[in-house]
Amino acid sequence: QRIKNGFREFWLHLHPMDRSGFRKLMFAIKSGLSLALVSLFIYVEQEQLNKYSIWAILTVIVVFEFSVGATLSKGLNRTLGTTLAGGLALVIGELSMLAGKFREIAIVSSIFIAGFLASYVKQHPNMKPYEYGFRVFMLTFCIVLVADSKDFLTTFYYRLILIAVGAGTALLVNIFIYPIWSGEDLHDLVVKNFNGVAASLEGCVNGYLQCVEYQRVPSKILIYQASDDPLYRGYRAAVQSSNQEETLLDFALWEPPHGPYYKFNYPWRSYVNVSGALRHCAFMVMAMHGCILSEIQAPAEKRMVFSNELQKVGNEGAKVLRQLGSKVQKMEKLSNADILFDVHEAAIQLQTKIDQQSFLLVNYDSWKITRKNNKENETLDNSIDMKVYENKEYLINLINNENGDDNSNSNIEPSLVRDSSSVSQSTTSLNRYWSRPHLTLQGEISEPELKVHESASSLSLATFASLLIEFVARLQNLVDEFQDLSEKAEFKNQTL
Amino acid sequence: QRIKNGFREFWLHLHPMDRSGFRKLMFAIKSGLSLALVSLFIYVEQEQLNKYSIWAILTVIVVFEFSVGATLSKGLNRTLGTTLAGGLALVIGELSMLAGKFREIAIVSSIFIAGFLASYVKQHPNMKPYEYGFRVFMLTFCIVLVADSKDFLTTFYYRLILIAVGAGTALLVNIFIYPIWSGEDLHDLVVKNFNGVAASLEGCVNGYLQCVEYQRVPSKILIYQASDDPLYRGYRAAVQSSNQEETLLDFALWEPPHGPYYKFNYPWRSYVNVSGALRHCAFMVMAMHGCILSEIQAPAEKRMVFSNELQKVGNEGAKVLRQLGSKVQKMEKLSNADILFDVHEAAIQLQTKIDQQSFLLVNYDSWKITRKNNKENETLDNSIDMKVYENKEYLINLINNENGDDNSNSNIEPSLVRDSSSVSQSTTSLNRYWSRPHLTLQGEISEPELKVHESASSLSLATFASLLIEFVARLQNLVDEFQDLSEKAEFKNQTL
Repeated sequence: QRIKNGFREFWLHLHPMDRSGFRKLMFAIKSGLSLALVSLFIYVEQEQLNKYSIWAILTVIVVFEFSVGATLSKGLNRTLGTTLAGGLALVIGELSMLAGKFREIAIVSSIFIAGFLASYVKQHPNMKPYEYGFRVFMLTFCIVLVADSKDFLTTFYYRLILIAVGAGTALLVNIFIYPIWSGEDLHDLVVKNFNGVAASLEGCVNGYLQCVEYQRVPSKILIYQASDDPLYRGYRAAVQSSNQEETLLDFALWEPPHGPYYKFNYPWRSYVNVSGALRHCAFMVMAMHGCILSEIQAPAEKRMVFSNELQKVGNEGAKVLRQLGSKVQKMEKLSNADILFDVHEAAIQLQTKIDQQSFLLVNYDSWKITRKNNKENETLDNSIDMKVYENKEYLINLINNENGDDNSNSNIEPSLVRDSSSVSQSTTSLNRYWSRPHLTLQGEISEPELKVHESASSLSLATFASLLIEFVARLQNLVDEFQDLSEKAEFKNQTL
Repeated sequence: QRIKNGFREFWLHLHPMDRSGFRKLMFAIKSGLSLALVSLFIYVEQEQLNKYSIWAILTVIVVFEFSVGATLSKGLNRTLGTTLAGGLALVIGELSMLAGKFREIAIVSSIFIAGFLASYVKQHPNMKPYEYGFRVFMLTFCIVLVADSKDFLTTFYYRLILIAVGAGTALLVNIFIYPIWSGEDLHDLVVKNFNGVAASLEGCVNGYLQCVEYQRVPSKILIYQASDDPLYRGYRAAVQSSNQEETLLDFALWEPPHGPYYKFNYPWRSYVNVSGALRHCAFMVMAMHGCILSEIQAPAEKRMVFSNELQKVGNEGAKVLRQLGSKVQKMEKLSNADILFDVHEAAIQLQTKIDQQSFLLVNYDSWKITRKNNKENETLDNSIDMKVYENKEYLINLINNENGDDNSNSNIEPSLVRDSSSVSQSTTSLNRYWSRPHLTLQGEISEPELKVHESASSLSLATFASLLIEFVARLQNLVDEFQDLSEKAEFKNQTL
């Protein structure tokens, strides 16, 4: 083990490449090695082994796969398919002798029937993992039937031996030289998803508070293709990985217990479930990102009011995700302390704040009168309220004048607002947003409709906050799934 | 063509099975037929053809795939891999002669090198479609080298011919007997996604207005696995189909022009883009479904206030999706009329309503005073407001008393509220929702925090509405992608 690590480090030192690159290289070396080993059969003196050595080579080429599980599953399929088909073909071959001069017809039609049945049955969804076995079945069936009837048995016998040798070589090389386990990959993938979603969550909350706006939403996001956008990458990877997880799961289930996964019947399925629960949370992050992508944007001053609370929930949420991810990675159980305590508290603070300041989330004009009546009740956030109140007046002026450069008397800390012209921008983009129907309806945008937009833009903030709260609510389910996994997989208790 | 249809109908009449079942059957018949055809080579009198006939059979078994594109791509890979590897092996075989008594070593090490290089290069992401070609390359390389050096050339020659015959047979059978085109499948898949998302959208809006609640969210939804839930199925299928689309796209690009896809270089990529844009819309439907799944629920009376507007936007949105889906299906261009006109108008109405009734979306108590001042300004929705106002009082009583059975004096039409106890339920589920942190914090839930819950539950309605509006906003992008597709694919103009 130490030697192996030493070798790896030495190699990495020589050629700076990442782990995945190293694995690819190792895979290629292993693959070449198995082939070379099997090709030595050509020089075995025994005539039959020599003659049929090509079957061992063929088996290695076909069976050798990236991970141990995939190789095992293919190797077993191949052996099973060969044995079954061989037996059947032998019987049919003997029977066809009885057909006398119609023998050719009997053989060709039995090939048709075997081909038809195998192709038909393999399409059944439950048969999908055995697809390869059916191909091998057809192949062997034909070969044995087609071979000279005299040496049916010897053909079959040597073929079986050589296939077993080929599959065995592929398997041994794959397991004992730098094995690549699907289960490990699945494990890593789940951990990576946790970190990706955590990064997206933080990015979305921070981006929202800093009023990041997309001048032009990248077209790749609009058609949901991979893009380098840092907010987008994390949750997209988690959402998209479901197919990859299923594939890895299929192979992982074939793999023998190994390393930290020493339990028999290791609960790989639970890893996929945890990842699924994470995905369920990631959809909320995706919807929050939608608030940033949207052309309807809440004004910056209003976001500032909730800044601390949103920030805290975002940070605590990401912390929980990272903690869970690291627990999965280290295979540790949760400690007794409630991992969700902090994030729930932060969410309650956010809710309280929303409750106190809910007038900010809707149309403001009709509030002015009440504000004066209620002012004495509010003590804690009074100063912030006043600030917002002034900004509000400013914003209304801004919209009416449609001139965005008069930004000097703003009370917002400049460091927090990345794009200082975002306020005016959001106004114009709103006009752009509904411009089409409006133009068709009335020719131009009238005063009362600007207020409609204004209320929509404030609601966008409410939406963001409530998506964030729903995200927190979904964390409970994620923790439950993690608990389930940690029980079933017998994770160790936390070491202090 | 007519005969084919007649046969199909006759068959469907005999055995009631759906189209996909019929295709599976046809595939199996075709597959058996090709095998039987190729196996006839055994009875060809020419000795060499007879001896190597197994290669034709092997090729058919390996190359024969469900769709024309997949068969073509595999067949080409196989031919290319065989030719290249054969040529290279011949050269190396000749060279190895020069090595004299080290010939064995030279051959085994060249097999190692070939295996290594092929395995290494095929892992490059760009090489993925040619993975199969690399396998064939390795196989042929070994076979030619291993074969007796005397008939290198004849082995190679007959093998190539028989592989060509096998690939040709597979291809001809696949194209001329009931062909199954990947492109057509891609086309159908996109249409299906449109209808699925439309159904989910309608279901979500209707479900939300009828206050459908999940007593227990199906665990499959919580870990994002396939489930029979009708609201969930539609958008999940659309979101999950992205991998399938990529696979079909890869094969479709191989297929020759055929039927309605007569254009050379048919823009299959654009179909995937349209589907991606649809997915971008589907994420909003997913988030709306999240509002139904959430434990935080807006009270039924408040939903009623916005019922008409939400319903209208939902219906118009689904109508647009269905129209676009049918346009894609019929391959028709959009007419000149703005397909989004109705849905935009409905969205504006919803926004206007939100603006007028925005006090419903936040904490209500502090509003009471204003309400009286503002009452004269509101003429249109006065009656509804009053109703809600009364319900509001009722709801507060309900929460304070925590007894949910006193439902008799409710003003809501019973037909619209499916679950008459939903109000009390949502209250209790809210308590359950935050119960944990609260219990830890203060031992029991105090009065002011109930109001927090209340404001959160009302915001949930705001969130639903604003997600719906964002959905409408995203439709523009979908229409743009469709326009792009309809131009590139030269869809026909609408027939009247």
